[in-house]
Amino acid sequence: MNFNIIRAARAVLNVTNLEESRRFYVHALGFIETESDDKHIYLRGLEEHTHHSLVLKKSDEPSVEAISYKVFAEEDLDTLSAFFTEKGYRIKWMGSGSQKAIGRTLRVQDVSGLPLEFFATMDPVDRLLQRYDLYKGAKVQRIDHFNCAVTDVEKAYNFYINELGFACSEYTTADDEKIWAAWLHRKPTVHDVAFMNGVGPRLHHVGFWLSDPMSVIHTCDVLASLGYGSSIERGPGRHGLSNAFFLYLRDPDGHRIELYNGDYLTSDPDFKPVKWDLDDPMRQTFWGHAAPDCWFNEASTVLDIHTGQAVETGDPKLEKKKPTIII
Amino acid sequence: MNFNIIRAARAVLNVTNLEESRRFYVHALGFIETESDDKHIYLRGLEEHTHHSLVLKKSDEPSVEAISYKVFAEEDLDTLSAFFTEKGYRIKWMGSGSQKAIGRTLRVQDVSGLPLEFFATMDPVDRLLQRYDLYKGAKVQRIDHFNCAVTDVEKAYNFYINELGFACSEYTTADDEKIWAAWLHRKPTVHDVAFMNGVGPRLHHVGFWLSDPMSVIHTCDVLASLGYGSSIERGPGRHGLSNAFFLYLRDPDGHRIELYNGDYLTSDPDFKPVKWDLDDPMRQTFWGHAAPDCWFNEASTVLDIHTGQAVETGDPKLEKKKPTIII
Amino acid sequence: MNFNIIRAARAVLNVTNLEESRRFYVHALGFIETESDDKHIYLRGLEEHTHHSLVLKKSDEPSVEAISYKVFAEEDLDTLSAFFTEKGYRIKWMGSGSQKAIGRTLRVQDVSGLPLEFFATMDPVDRLLQRYDLYKGAKVQRIDHFNCAVTDVEKAYNFYINELGFACSEYTTADDEKIWAAWLHRKPTVHDVAFMNGVGPRLHHVGFWLSDPMSVIHTCDVLASLGYGSSIERGPGRHGLSNAFFLYLRDPDGHRIELYNGDYLTSDPDFKPVKWDLDDPMRQTFWGHAAPDCWFNEASTVLDIHTGQAVETGDPKLEKKKPTIII
Amino acid sequence: MNFNIIRAARAVLNVTNLEESRRFYVHALGFIETESDDKHIYLRGLEEHTHHSLVLKKSDEPSVEAISYKVFAEEDLDTLSAFFTEKGYRIKWMGSGSQKAIGRTLRVQDVSGLPLEFFATMDPVDRLLQRYDLYKGAKVQRIDHFNCAVTDVEKAYNFYINELGFACSEYTTADDEKIWAAWLHRKPTVHDVAFMNGVGPRLHHVGFWLSDPMSVIHTCDVLASLGYGSSIERGPGRHGLSNAFFLYLRDPDGHRIELYNGDYLTSDPDFKPVKWDLDDPMRQTFWGHAAPDCWFNEASTVLDIHTGQAVETGDPKLEKKKPTIII
Repeated sequence: MNFNIIRAARAVLNVTNLEESRRFYVHALGFIETESDDKHIYLRGLEEHTHHSLVLKKSDEPSVEAISYKVFAEEDLDTLSAFFTEKGYRIKWMGSGSQKAIGRTLRVQDVSGLPLEFFATMDPVDRLLQRYDLYKGAKVQRIDHFNCAVTDVEKAYNFYINELGFACSEYTTADDEKIWAAWLHRKPTVHDVAFMNGVGPRLHHVGFWLSDPMSVIHTCDVLASLGYGSSIERGPGRHGLSNAFFLYLRDPDGHRIELYNGDYLTSDPDFKPVKWDLDDPMRQTFWGHAAPDCWFNEASTVLDIHTGQAVETGDPKLEKKKPTIII
Repeated sequence: MNFNIIRAARAVLNVTNLEESRRFYVHALGFIETESDDKHIYLRGLEEHTHHSLVLKKSDEPSVEAISYKVFAEEDLDTLSAFFTEKGYRIKWMGSGSQKAIGRTLRVQDVSGLPLEFFATMDPVDRLLQRYDLYKGAKVQRIDHFNCAVTDVEKAYNFYINELGFACSEYTTADDEKIWAAWLHRKPTVHDVAFMNGVGPRLHHVGFWLSDPMSVIHTCDVLASLGYGSSIERGPGRHGLSNAFFLYLRDPDGHRIELYNGDYLTSDPDFKPVKWDLDDPMRQTFWGHAAPDCWFNEASTVLDIHTGQAVETGDPKLEKKKPTIII
Repeated sequence: MNFNIIRAARAVLNVTNLEESRRFYVHALGFIETESDDKHIYLRGLEEHTHHSLVLKKSDEPSVEAISYKVFAEEDLDTLSAFFTEKGYRIKWMGSGSQKAIGRTLRVQDVSGLPLEFFATMDPVDRLLQRYDLYKGAKVQRIDHFNCAVTDVEKAYNFYINELGFACSEYTTADDEKIWAAWLHRKPTVHDVAFMNGVGPRLHHVGFWLSDPMSVIHTCDVLASLGYGSSIERGPGRHGLSNAFFLYLRDPDGHRIELYNGDYLTSDPDFKPVKWDLDDPMRQTFWGHAAPDCWFNEASTVLDIHTGQAVETGDPKLEKKKPTIII
Repeated sequence: MNFNIIRAARAVLNVTNLEESRRFYVHALGFIETESDDKHIYLRGLEEHTHHSLVLKKSDEPSVEAISYKVFAEEDLDTLSAFFTEKGYRIKWMGSGSQKAIGRTLRVQDVSGLPLEFFATMDPVDRLLQRYDLYKGAKVQRIDHFNCAVTDVEKAYNFYINELGFACSEYTTADDEKIWAAWLHRKPTVHDVAFMNGVGPRLHHVGFWLSDPMSVIHTCDVLASLGYGSSIERGPGRHGLSNAFFLYLRDPDGHRIELYNGDYLTSDPDFKPVKWDLDDPMRQTFWGHAAPDCWFNEASTVLDIHTGQAVETGDPKLEKKKPTIII
């Protein structure tokens, strides 16, 4: 591996009504709207120093165009391109300027069929970390991770660990010691991406980081005040796995957003991945609440990077136990 | 009304295993154990300046011996005695010294059959409000209220408002404008006692006040760490009714405890009780979570003050809709 | 005493620039502006169900027109009028309608020369307690208390306790056991009014209640973001006396506002006032920080209710030790 | 640079009384005592998965034996050894087993005279992150950084950036654009080490990470309850620089500890270091509080790694302005 992926960096989500999305993300959750036109809204968190971490695109159907990683330098894009091409993947380049505020990007459907994107540069913007007068709603700080449902977690795990250079922080095994779910990272937090056994490939959620646990509570109150009570799908609660204090929301198009606080540092090479067993009493949510079925069954459709059509999904390899542990 | 009831002051709960109760209340929740013997544990919150607000008594079966109010002065006990006697209630006196740390008490089965107790004096103790080094678990500050299931809420409401001098802060009505549940107070908080339509008379829960919302979150974490995950019955969440940030726990005997933060001042005589309708979209928990069935169906048996036997329960007068609003 | 004072209810402050005041109180601190005209701004907290708790009046000089208590009923105003008149105080009536949103008021210069006002009725408004989408800045919940510098605390204490029916929660004594400062209440919190030994009569601050400690922290951040860093005079910190988690601010005219969280219940008639000694190591701020000199020396001028002129101040009877304990 | 320094990893502090240190660090602050003998106490935070991050050694005088970084692999130690030796530094090896729970270490006096230590392996221990029942005091999560006073910040900055591979997150310049203070990191947080212009080389403080802002407040309350009020030197407050919500404590030997929450992610290579000017109105503490003089003037003596004697200090090159911004 001679490329350096830095971190999960942005998601490009198709939505059906920009005004409704704006009301949810900007007015209710407090994302910063960096820029917008009649087809896009570009959002970022208060801590972010580049143009956006979430793109909402006007579309007929909700779906996921890309989940995107930042790399260290432009050269890394070329190396990644060569790597994927050699492995037989059909890559796609999008030139600098073809997407707002971002340099050239490399796209590829990954080993599980997920629409990946890589880029090295994005326009800088004013960081609003200390503009506390602009803090509202969830006071979202920054994008943190993607969680994806895939049919073969072990295959995804091996590819990300062995080929892309991710490290594993926590994982769950089924009875046969097969990996049922895994949390992987490049930046030294619990994850940049997680994979779980399920109908896939689909995007389960995009995770955003909040500055403190009270912001999670306040988000619930603000959402309820604005009539978004039904958008609260799960939580607040504590994950055993990852120790995150979490809240799961469904946006107006059904895309799932996780807001959370409570990570830990995974910088050390000798940090031993935490293993959870499906029969472990701790596999449940740390406080013992069950996740609702919709949290388990529903996820966002992902698109083919070449055709723009929905990627066909398949059934998971492992038994589809209700994954109350998965985050 | 020529007596002055000050506030909800203590509960006397029968439990089957004092050691298990101590582990739950003292070790996990952080109640202060003022004193104990082989048949009793006397507990108080960190803010409390009198001996206890919760008595756990060793017994063969879990039950509620008394829910107890403090009155302004000894004379109030005499006036209350005369009042109840005149109304045809059979009262019971327990002399000073017959119960640990507390003056003489007047007991009576109230209009709904609940075992009430009144007292004017309790031994003072050191208030530990500023002994932050002793704060642990839920850091319980003080007793706040009782919530009781009764068969005829309107009857209870009228008696407490018109005869005992309580005021109403919030209430819920069914379709026919009948009072389905009511929150009543003497001290100017949301409540000292609440009544809800249900199989009764039973004690639904005893509410304790926490100093801040983070203490609710920390309580969940501590309980889970100690293996009490299954004791968390409902929450954390926000009540629409009362605005409380709540957590409901079941103690080792199944007695329900509410820990909460987020009250408001009800001192003004012109404060208009907040009315909630069963069909109001806000009747649900503020954030939209449903209460589990057990929270609705289960409550503690109360005893007859004279015989010490369980009071027979009856079915509620109003239709028994799942009262997700009730707190 | 045959009248019933309910609680500290509003302050009428003269300010020199309404726009600057609005920016501070509404934009930065998040007070709700109920109504305004070119001479007044009427503000309330999120929990308040009546028209306002703070009136800002356009004036040439900053000063205090009145500190105002709500009484139980109209009759209480008559009884208070008779009481003060009999004692030789010159009262002043202001008819219903002469002041916005408030019934008739009785004004009188109290035993220390402070401009008191009493009223029984104020127009009801929508309580915004559960409009969390409107929460901003300090998310002020409600008015709580007044703190006043007077030349003879013992005289004020005796008058409020013995004549007006207040109770004492905490007090400080000097070497000779003279009362140096006292915290008095009608509603069962730590105080509705506090008196401290100093150049008086002056209003030291008006205290407002916040819902949780994190709101105190967030207030500092928001103030700093908006360029109000120099308005933060003292804190955040914990008072030993009262246990309040406090923040003292100076508004654009120099009026001092306390924002705080962390009171306790003082409902019990046998609650023994907490005594603090000036030589007690705990007399300092609980965490040991010293108060700045300006906090000690500066306070707002109060007006004569009859002439509208500044009340002449006098020197305190007791030695003017730096009262780091005073809140 | 062909070595990989992971992060700030441990400090070795000489203290004069182990029992007093234990009372402060373990009983009051809630550090976990992994192990101890009659000459050492080994402490760690709740999140840490290796043996310790703070060693307290019994000594006649308080001083700093080493500040220590973890490297990626054993080979990095050899490469570092060769690097320093080639540059003319006199290194010192301590074999595996010569220090408790840690592999071989490389020690060297750095460009400013600070006693550095590098190691690759430390014994693993149970991570107590989810043992919330053990959380007490400050609930310290992990070591975060060192802050050092040096005579020539620009020299230190250049060495760490250009030779050791650190990145700069924020820095302060004096009038002549000379670097007055700098915050440098290897792990992608604000810092692993900071240098400020002052009498040096000395260790200003060791920074530990807390999980949330309320833990900072609670720490103050617990310290005050236990009589450690005078150990609170500065804060709580918000740093403009780094955005940290901070608290500075002095341990029983005068060593300074920072407890804090509120960092941000510095993973991106194109993150532009934040520049602060000494004349910038924001150079002060974000909320405007001044730091006490002792915070500015006092720091811990560091030892020569070869002689064990105190390293002689020198005066700073730049004017010694009171660095209220420095953290």
